[in-house]
Amino acid sequence: MTFDVYDTTLRDGAQQEGMNLTVADKLAIAPLLDELGVGFIEGGWPGAIPKDTEFFRRARTELTLKNAVLAAFGATRKAGVTVDADPQVRALLDAEAPVVTLVAKSDVRHVERALRTTREENLAMITDTVRFLVAQGRRVVLDAEHFYDGFRFDPAYATSAVRAAFDAGAEVVTLCDTNGGMLPAFVTDVVGAVRAAVGQGPRLGMHAHNDTGCAVANSLAAVAAGASHVQGTVNGYGERTGNADLIAVVANLELKHGVELLVNAGLREATRIAHAIAEITNIAPFARQPYVGASAFAHKGGLHASAIKVDPDLYQHVDPVAVGNDMRMLVSEMAGRASIELKGRELGFDLTGQGDLLARVTTRVKDAEAAGYTYDAADASFELLLREELTGQRPVYFEVESWRTIIETLPGQGQGRGAVASAEATVKLRAGGERIVSTGEGNGPVNALDQALRKALVRTYPQIERFALTDFKVRILESEQGTDSTTRVLVVTTDGERTWSTVGVGPNIIEASWEALLDAHVFGLLQAKVEAR
Amino acid sequence: MTFDVYDTTLRDGAQQEGMNLTVADKLAIAPLLDELGVGFIEGGWPGAIPKDTEFFRRARTELTLKNAVLAAFGATRKAGVTVDADPQVRALLDAEAPVVTLVAKSDVRHVERALRTTREENLAMITDTVRFLVAQGRRVVLDAEHFYDGFRFDPAYATSAVRAAFDAGAEVVTLCDTNGGMLPAFVTDVVGAVRAAVGQGPRLGMHAHNDTGCAVANSLAAVAAGASHVQGTVNGYGERTGNADLIAVVANLELKHGVELLVNAGLREATRIAHAIAEITNIAPFARQPYVGASAFAHKGGLHASAIKVDPDLYQHVDPVAVGNDMRMLVSEMAGRASIELKGRELGFDLTGQGDLLARVTTRVKDAEAAGYTYDAADASFELLLREELTGQRPVYFEVESWRTIIETLPGQGQGRGAVASAEATVKLRAGGERIVSTGEGNGPVNALDQALRKALVRTYPQIERFALTDFKVRILESEQGTDSTTRVLVVTTDGERTWSTVGVGPNIIEASWEALLDAHVFGLLQAKVEAR
Repeated sequence: MTFDVYDTTLRDGAQQEGMNLTVADKLAIAPLLDELGVGFIEGGWPGAIPKDTEFFRRARTELTLKNAVLAAFGATRKAGVTVDADPQVRALLDAEAPVVTLVAKSDVRHVERALRTTREENLAMITDTVRFLVAQGRRVVLDAEHFYDGFRFDPAYATSAVRAAFDAGAEVVTLCDTNGGMLPAFVTDVVGAVRAAVGQGPRLGMHAHNDTGCAVANSLAAVAAGASHVQGTVNGYGERTGNADLIAVVANLELKHGVELLVNAGLREATRIAHAIAEITNIAPFARQPYVGASAFAHKGGLHASAIKVDPDLYQHVDPVAVGNDMRMLVSEMAGRASIELKGRELGFDLTGQGDLLARVTTRVKDAEAAGYTYDAADASFELLLREELTGQRPVYFEVESWRTIIETLPGQGQGRGAVASAEATVKLRAGGERIVSTGEGNGPVNALDQALRKALVRTYPQIERFALTDFKVRILESEQGTDSTTRVLVVTTDGERTWSTVGVGPNIIEASWEALLDAHVFGLLQAKVEAR
Repeated sequence: MTFDVYDTTLRDGAQQEGMNLTVADKLAIAPLLDELGVGFIEGGWPGAIPKDTEFFRRARTELTLKNAVLAAFGATRKAGVTVDADPQVRALLDAEAPVVTLVAKSDVRHVERALRTTREENLAMITDTVRFLVAQGRRVVLDAEHFYDGFRFDPAYATSAVRAAFDAGAEVVTLCDTNGGMLPAFVTDVVGAVRAAVGQGPRLGMHAHNDTGCAVANSLAAVAAGASHVQGTVNGYGERTGNADLIAVVANLELKHGVELLVNAGLREATRIAHAIAEITNIAPFARQPYVGASAFAHKGGLHASAIKVDPDLYQHVDPVAVGNDMRMLVSEMAGRASIELKGRELGFDLTGQGDLLARVTTRVKDAEAAGYTYDAADASFELLLREELTGQRPVYFEVESWRTIIETLPGQGQGRGAVASAEATVKLRAGGERIVSTGEGNGPVNALDQALRKALVRTYPQIERFALTDFKVRILESEQGTDSTTRVLVVTTDGERTWSTVGVGPNIIEASWEALLDAHVFGLLQAKVEAR
């Protein structure tokens, strides 16, 4: 059976309030979706949104997908123009994605009141655009917008839009609950009726929004009624209440119905991937999120605690390992030993049977996470911690005495917009037997500190010349306290061949960044096999 | 038809990770639930949890409910003791609530492995306890724990537990998906089978958890299969992924199926009540929550905005007024003039027919967004921009000459983890005809700048005394460039009554924060109707 798991995090997910993905963000999220094992990654709307045009351009050289294919999203041709003269349709071809997903109207009220064209012209727009793209060698998915509302208002017209798409060569027609108002029983009826009208052959898809709290159930209802293509987003991102949470939909189908949908059993990595994507979108993960939420397998009741030890299966609906999550007892705050053992193995350390060590590392990770650290996206900091527990010490390449950074505007330049500020930092440290005082300048305090630190170290450790910061993320934790909150910084560093991530936490961005920069340099030197003192 | 809307926010909701309700919290939440119009408020487990014993004691004198009745939650008698000798059952009577909800085992595996008693004794515990409480004048609801898992494993035994409760006089038997693993199709099957076994008379209830993302849909499925009692919590609070979101369940039944369930049309107050309860639980509301979330009726796509003006019903599944929520337009790069016009109207500016002005504002918004600003979450900065275009100038309350901030560690304290740094800032500005130089300290550079700025201004503008930063968010844009990237800061400020959000962008966090702080102060003074120079 052909079944499509179609991800639209980068396109419809990006419609979420407060989300603003850069091209770099999209290029970082796509490989994670690929690793999850989805079949399709909808990258954006080339031609309509300049950033998305750029995404598809850069994807050609910068993105290597192992499992998924890219889909470019766009609209059917404009009313009253020929399809090959429509620049928006041209831009879809220029994106060079193997799949094009076309949004089309199927609710006659939208055709007449929003699109302001005729019923017939709308059908011709579908026919022409699908046929044109298929002739150009594209696989075409047709997203029938507002389909459920449209079908309930005028089933004949809605069905004619579906037929037009299939007749013109569409591979799948997705029935979209664009306004999100459906309940599962309505979905069952409508998909069943469309199935009856078009026969068993043509492939139907489902695109659900969560306005009634039923997006996941609506997707399951559509599949039960004969859909073989489901669209959704990671973490349920999307406009208003969000799209169907793709991981929950897939987990329900895989774990409750026993079908395998994701390539390479990707579901087992779902929790890590969902959290890594949240780090990139910089939207705090929802703890109660089904399957992958931090609380999803967390048990509070003293009622349950002893019984869980006897027989965990009595108290959990699935094994959390199936989605890469952990059971947690809420006496203690975080990660289980099993995941630390797995993580160690991933980094090349076999911790099997080393119960004491595992216990010490688990305690340190737990304490650190309670203080705001996260090792999900900071492998290098985790490896330094693990090595420290293994060897009893942290490699010492240099000893910092003190540091300082100043940022100031020129006189008369403090008014805000367009203010010109300069940043300078001084670092005092000992390295290679010498005391070094070095000053750096930068476009901000962190940049200035980074410059001062590398200037101070490069004489002793020329390898540092090749280190470069490639990414830098800031997250304010426990907000609702104004600037009194804790800051977490993630830094990604490269030496041109390898890339590593470190984390720092502090009462403000400068102190947190300093800690992450130190870890980045120590790990880089360790990896370059430089001997520590 | 009798239909129970049964709220368990105070009991099962309180099992949520991170939630810790005091007796005073519970006494404050109960009247809000009553105002919402639910029929039953489950207050806690008297006898087992001292706080809950206290709640029921104080409720007698301190709580006046207009619509709802209180339910005391507890367990069937212990194995091997007579019911009137069981202190836990006694405590349920002592709570003096008109309703007692008894949790009982119905999954034979739980009877044998967790409760460690016999199948027969478990049924006797149900019979004895229900009969005893009914004889004492209580209305009894029996919550059949792990019912679905139990029924799928041993339907005969699970059904015998239900029968025992009805035979002893229970008013309702609630079928509980305690582990939350059900999907709607399974619920339909099980409730249908139980209905067939017990006949049409006895009343069945539903208690769902959201582990599959289907708690709302499972509740609807149970109602469709014949349940006439639904349990849930406000905001979907609860252990793991939470309980069924009671407002979403009720809204779906009232607005999509046309039944009236809440007293006094309480659904129209749902958004305010859900947010008020979140204030008391001190858990940040989830913006994407169905019906009552801040984003639930927020529209971003420029695609939609022009059509929404014509016919809002084409783009919303229900009228937001039905749940006390509002449609909001988000100003974003995807937005065109139409959404800016709508946003203006929301802020109280009628821009109809002002084509030139709209064009200027749209251009400024697009330029600003290209530079990294976002107005989605910064209404106050948008209003300042709009006013500037309307009046030709920005209100001037003060003129900044320059500012500076220094952050430094003490000698010997620079090593990273545990480093102690101090932050200090100086601001020079003119306000009220004077030149002012002021210095502030803080736990970081932004905090220090905020302190210095408010110290400088408060003599001239005492209103500033009441301003407080309540939230602060940082986003690094276009990363993949290390610390050379652009930083965006969102700041939320309150004067105790109103709350406003501002945005700043700069090459680093300090400059971006400074800009957002300036906007926050200017907007706050404008709103306080302080005259500008």
